[in-house]
Amino acid sequence: MDLEGVVRDSIKMSTRVESGPAGIEADIERAIRELRERAKGPPIAVGVGIAGQIDGRDGSVHFSPNLNWREVPLQRDLEQRLGLPVVVTNDVRAITWGEWVYGAAKGFNDVVCLFVGTGVGGGVISAGRMLSGCANAAGELGHIVVDIDGPVCTCGNRGCLEAFVGGWAIARRAQQTVKQDRNGGERLVELSGGTIEGITAEAVARLARGGDPLCLSIIDVVGHALTFGCVSLVNVFNPCRLIMGGGVIEGVPELIDRVRDGVRRLALPAAAAALEVMPGALGSSAGVVGAANFAVRTLSDKARAGG
Amino acid sequence: MDLEGVVRDSIKMSTRVESGPAGIEADIERAIRELRERAKGPPIAVGVGIAGQIDGRDGSVHFSPNLNWREVPLQRDLEQRLGLPVVVTNDVRAITWGEWVYGAAKGFNDVVCLFVGTGVGGGVISAGRMLSGCANAAGELGHIVVDIDGPVCTCGNRGCLEAFVGGWAIARRAQQTVKQDRNGGERLVELSGGTIEGITAEAVARLARGGDPLCLSIIDVVGHALTFGCVSLVNVFNPCRLIMGGGVIEGVPELIDRVRDGVRRLALPAAAAALEVMPGALGSSAGVVGAANFAVRTLSDKARAGG
Repeated sequence: MDLEGVVRDSIKMSTRVESGPAGIEADIERAIRELRERAKGPPIAVGVGIAGQIDGRDGSVHFSPNLNWREVPLQRDLEQRLGLPVVVTNDVRAITWGEWVYGAAKGFNDVVCLFVGTGVGGGVISAGRMLSGCANAAGELGHIVVDIDGPVCTCGNRGCLEAFVGGWAIARRAQQTVKQDRNGGERLVELSGGTIEGITAEAVARLARGGDPLCLSIIDVVGHALTFGCVSLVNVFNPCRLIMGGGVIEGVPELIDRVRDGVRRLALPAAAAALEVMPGALGSSAGVVGAANFAVRTLSDKARAGG
Repeated sequence: MDLEGVVRDSIKMSTRVESGPAGIEADIERAIRELRERAKGPPIAVGVGIAGQIDGRDGSVHFSPNLNWREVPLQRDLEQRLGLPVVVTNDVRAITWGEWVYGAAKGFNDVVCLFVGTGVGGGVISAGRMLSGCANAAGELGHIVVDIDGPVCTCGNRGCLEAFVGGWAIARRAQQTVKQDRNGGERLVELSGGTIEGITAEAVARLARGGDPLCLSIIDVVGHALTFGCVSLVNVFNPCRLIMGGGVIEGVPELIDRVRDGVRRLALPAAAAALEVMPGALGSSAGVVGAANFAVRTLSDKARAGG
C-alpha cells in the first residue's frame, strides 16, 4: 500500500496452520520478498493484522486460538527475517483502523466497529485513538452479556452477544431447533448434506433470504440480540458511527436496518442523536490498508516521542 | 481546593430545585463569594459537577432530569456572575476524575467507575483521558442491557443494568414481591411505615444485612445482574481498576466482593488479568476534588492548545 492508501500490489495465500509459527513466518517472508522485487520503490514498514491477543509493546502474540499459538514473538521474528520495521496488531483492530482512516468512519473521532463472523469481534476508536485498555485486551464486543440466563458461550460465560449472533451460535441454534423438531427443517437439512450436524450459519442465512420460516425465526433471534447488544454499545460509547461487517452481516444485510431502527428506538436519545449505523465501505481490504496505515502511524508516533 | 488536592474550605447546602436555574445559580454565587472572602489567596477557577447531560464545548446543561432543567447555559451564567473561569462537567464524571487523580484509581490510565445509587452512572478513563464520545454522552454504564427480556427501565428500554440494580429498581422489585405474597415481607413493610409503597432500597439493604430471607433474595438478584454488567464492562474496556461506589454499594458492600469473584470467573482472562475491583477511596469528596481538578486541567489544556 502506498501512503495515500492505495493497494499497489498484493499476494493472497492460505494460512498453513499446521506448519506452526516458523512455517507461517517463512510464508510471509517469501510473499514480502516477492512484493519487494515487484515494487518500484523500497518499503517503509510491514503491518500485520492477526487474529489473536497481541502485546501492545512488542507485537508478540500472547494467544491465537485460530492458529493455536501461544507466546510467539511474531513482530521480532519478522523484523529479523525481513530487515524492516514490523508492527503487529489484532486483525479486527486493523479492520477498524482501515475503516476509520480510509472507509466508512473517515473523519469521525468516535467510532465503534462490530464484526459478526464465526466469532464476534470489535474495535473502538475513542477521541481519535484506538481503545486498547490496561493490557491491550479492550474491545471484546462479542463478550458483552445480553442475557444473564442466556446460552453458554465458548468463553465459558453465558448470554454473551457472540453466543446469540456468532456464526457458530447460529449453527448451534439451528441444529438444536431441528433436533427437537424436524418439521420445517427439511430444506435446511437437505442443504446441509443431509445431516443436522452439517447445518451452518451460511445455510440458515441463505434459506432465510428465500423466506424459509424456520430460518427466518432463527435470524429473528439474531436480530433481537444484536439490536440490544448495539444499544448497549451506543449507550456506553456514544459513537458517531457504528460500522457493521463480517460474514453474518454480509449474509443477512437486513440486520443492519434492524439494528439502526432498534438503536433509534431504544438507545438513550443523547447517545444516539449523532449516530449513523452503516456497513463497512472497504470490504476485505479494510484489514490490509488498516494494518499498513497503523504500522506507519505507530512508527511515526514513536519517532515523535523520541523512541 | 488547592492545587495539591486538599480541600481548604467548604460550604454545603441543599439544592433548591423549585427555585429554578436563576435561584440555584444565585445560591452558588453567594457560597463562592463567602468562600472567596474566607480564603487567603485568589481563586484560579470554579469546577462544577452536575447531574445531567453537559455540552462539552460550552458547559451548558442540555438536560438534567433531577433539576428539571433544559438548555441552561450554566457555565456562561456562572462566569458572568463570578468573573472567574468556570468548567462544568457531569457529576459522575467529576467523581471518576477525582478517584483517578487523587483516589483509588490514581496512577492507572484505564479505569471504569460504576456508581450505583437511585440511578446508575459511570465514568471511563481510557488511555489517561475521560471517555466523552461523539456528543459528550458516553459512559451511560447503567444502560447496558443485561437481559433482553428483563424489566422495563426508566429510559424506555428493558433489561438495562439500572433496571436491576438501581435503588428505584430494588424498591420496585421489593414492592412487587411483597404485593404478590405478603408472607416474609412483614418486617420490610413494618420498617417502611406500614405500607408496601413506602418500601425503599435502603430498607431492603438494611434488612438484608440482618439476614432477612426476602431481602437477601432481592439483593441476590442485584448481585447477579451487577456481576454480569461488570463482566461486560471489563470485556469491553479491559480496565486496570474497576471502582464501585454509590448508595447501593455503600448499603451492601458485599456486592463488591461478589462482583470481584464473578469477574474473575466469568470475564475473559486477558481482559481481567490486570484488574482490581475496589470501592472508591474518597467518599463524598471525590466529586468535589474531581470537579476542581478537572477545571484546572481543562483550562491548562486550553492554554497549551492556544485557546
